[in-house]
Amino acid sequence: MRMTDILEKKKKGDVLSRDEIAFFVEGYTKGTIPDYQASAFTMAVLFQGLNKEETAALTDCMMHSGEVIDLSAIEGVKVDKHSTGGVGDKTSLVLGPLVASCGAKVAKMSGRGLGHTGGTLDKLESIRGMSVSLSKEAFREQVRQIGISIIGQTGDLVPADKKLYALRDVTATVDSIPLIASSIMSKKLASGSDTILLDVKFGSGAFMKTLEDAKTLARAMVEIGRSLGRDTRAVITDMDQPLGYAVGNSLEVMEAVNTLRGKGPKDLEELCVSLGAIMLDQAGIVKDTETAKSLLRQKIASGEAYAKLKEMVRAQGGDVSQLDDPSRFCDVAASVTVYADREGYVHAIEALTVGEVAMHLGAGRATKEDTIDMAAGIVLRKKIGDYVKCKEPLAVIYTNKEAYQPMAEALSGAFVILPEQAKENPLIYTVIA
Amino acid sequence: MRMTDILEKKKKGDVLSRDEIAFFVEGYTKGTIPDYQASAFTMAVLFQGLNKEETAALTDCMMHSGEVIDLSAIEGVKVDKHSTGGVGDKTSLVLGPLVASCGAKVAKMSGRGLGHTGGTLDKLESIRGMSVSLSKEAFREQVRQIGISIIGQTGDLVPADKKLYALRDVTATVDSIPLIASSIMSKKLASGSDTILLDVKFGSGAFMKTLEDAKTLARAMVEIGRSLGRDTRAVITDMDQPLGYAVGNSLEVMEAVNTLRGKGPKDLEELCVSLGAIMLDQAGIVKDTETAKSLLRQKIASGEAYAKLKEMVRAQGGDVSQLDDPSRFCDVAASVTVYADREGYVHAIEALTVGEVAMHLGAGRATKEDTIDMAAGIVLRKKIGDYVKCKEPLAVIYTNKEAYQPMAEALSGAFVILPEQAKENPLIYTVIA
Repeated sequence: MRMTDILEKKKKGDVLSRDEIAFFVEGYTKGTIPDYQASAFTMAVLFQGLNKEETAALTDCMMHSGEVIDLSAIEGVKVDKHSTGGVGDKTSLVLGPLVASCGAKVAKMSGRGLGHTGGTLDKLESIRGMSVSLSKEAFREQVRQIGISIIGQTGDLVPADKKLYALRDVTATVDSIPLIASSIMSKKLASGSDTILLDVKFGSGAFMKTLEDAKTLARAMVEIGRSLGRDTRAVITDMDQPLGYAVGNSLEVMEAVNTLRGKGPKDLEELCVSLGAIMLDQAGIVKDTETAKSLLRQKIASGEAYAKLKEMVRAQGGDVSQLDDPSRFCDVAASVTVYADREGYVHAIEALTVGEVAMHLGAGRATKEDTIDMAAGIVLRKKIGDYVKCKEPLAVIYTNKEAYQPMAEALSGAFVILPEQAKENPLIYTVIA
Repeated sequence: MRMTDILEKKKKGDVLSRDEIAFFVEGYTKGTIPDYQASAFTMAVLFQGLNKEETAALTDCMMHSGEVIDLSAIEGVKVDKHSTGGVGDKTSLVLGPLVASCGAKVAKMSGRGLGHTGGTLDKLESIRGMSVSLSKEAFREQVRQIGISIIGQTGDLVPADKKLYALRDVTATVDSIPLIASSIMSKKLASGSDTILLDVKFGSGAFMKTLEDAKTLARAMVEIGRSLGRDTRAVITDMDQPLGYAVGNSLEVMEAVNTLRGKGPKDLEELCVSLGAIMLDQAGIVKDTETAKSLLRQKIASGEAYAKLKEMVRAQGGDVSQLDDPSRFCDVAASVTVYADREGYVHAIEALTVGEVAMHLGAGRATKEDTIDMAAGIVLRKKIGDYVKCKEPLAVIYTNKEAYQPMAEALSGAFVILPEQAKENPLIYTVIA
């Protein structure tokens, strides 16, 4: 088999066999197929696509290009959730403890933030002492004992995707649905959970800009999961404005804590309860999603959900007292309020701009080498649909950087305020199963 | 400027600026842009194409990526001709001396054969002592004195194309009209002649399989030449059967000699006279192509055309006596006649098969490292339109290889013989100027 023949076929729009896809993935992982053939391949796929069978085969081969985590020693159904990324998306911090408190097993490997989107690991690390790098054994043991652990990727998972993703990033071949779907799913499948729930976000702050694209990606991923025998479902959710009010690492942890204590933002709580209900349904713990929702709300009300977060933080070495007393989070040099320059209803809060401002304030990384300022970020005071008077606060900036004025102005520009009442978008558009 | 942004634009189908194209060509030549971005670029171009301005800019940048030959010290109009390659295509060996004998200046840099097509340099080297590597100074001096020299590429011409072509070859991105056109034209323009005539062949033995593709390529190249201020014309010619009767290096030299002596195959002579007439018109030596044709025929009849070939061979160290006496060409171990297994009219002689058989007999290279057997090859006895009786010879194989039987069978299979009379294709389809 020769890579040039495989390239020739895909270029013409022919369907590749499983053997051909395996030849590519294995060769590229080992280095016998060079980068320049792999990038020609990803560009050809970008134009010609991959059908369902090809996408499933690519995912399967990438999944098996390295270690596959075995969670079978943990009793019960191991549930996993993945978000395609958004601004202010602290869902995992709430959802993990919440479903674990209901009896589902959460053995979750999360990622770091890049660009305008945050990452769960960075957020967890804003808790003093919290470790996100556990050995596989410690990880499994913690899930077995307390039902939850959230850590960074352990072992040599999906090396093919690591290499291919880095290549796609510098060859303008990121935005291909089958390549995105196989990249996400190969990692989720390799990390070993029994069920996968995908939170596919769309809107200005998400990677997918339209509902149609989000649906196409969601369907592709659900089909991969189904082809490879894993219970996989997806929800399409709104990312036209940030989720909740807080954007930035420790700010988001505080908001997650509030939500687990029943005092969080309505949208975040609603999303967590809806996603949690599906996860419990996948785990077979409840008879239907309505029962699941009331169980989840009950776990919040009783304090069990929050207690589960503290259990996890304690098990991973984190300072639990910080969660109870937010004043113990690290300080910022300045908190600057951004005011409305007119009166009216908030029609939009450009999530992409909010995410980028937060990044520039120190809350995120422009490149992988940047370090994060855990205290930096934004807390919104208004959301879409709210009425705002002139000179009323729109948001507060938290930063240790001196030149924050342009950021404050950019943030102000992210708010669209109009005289007429605003129509709110639904939070969850559709469920794909 | 960043290569990823250029890739992103081309991927979306946007038009690149001259600066962006220059950034790519310079960066890739210097090595600051890696192969994997260049191959993503060529694959994106394959799908999205390049418009006329982009193609001209790419050609111009590639042309100037290395040395550009200056022929201004040679008086008169320097004419050049390029064939896109075929089987039995010894046109340059006839055409060069022919137009030089009429007063045009031929300072020609030719290539070697690869795969099923031969190369002028290899053919010339079948003449004992003949050198095709002259210094630039010797090359120019020879053209100044006797009006013609045919050599291999000298100096560091078009390094961008050298690198890019090698990459395209292993990334399934050869078959893009703008990339083919800019590759050919950058080399022709850099080699410094005043006029360029392109012989774009199509059919089973050519790179372009259809008339439409050949026309598109021809138009693209003529447009490049025009954009860059060089008199460029193209003819579309038939390559559905080999040109002339001989395929193989010394066999083709003998046929070229015969043609220059007025005893060559009709198709080869006709093609050379037609192309020569256009070249003389480009050189401004004649008032029209009809006058040109009679001048060319006269130079053949008078022996001046053949004398010019001998002059060139002598100047480049070749053994002229070998041209006068073909028996002095090197010998073969076996000459094997292939006979017709039925009677009828020859409807087709698969040129691709003939070229491949000749290559396997030793006349060509499967890879760049192979060496050539100058004596090996094929001489056809029948061409399209001829009537053949059962057991009558179709062709003769010349080889030093022992296992020639499968080759003889393949060659026999290249002939399509049917009871009804065959329609001959025109040799020249159209002229694009």
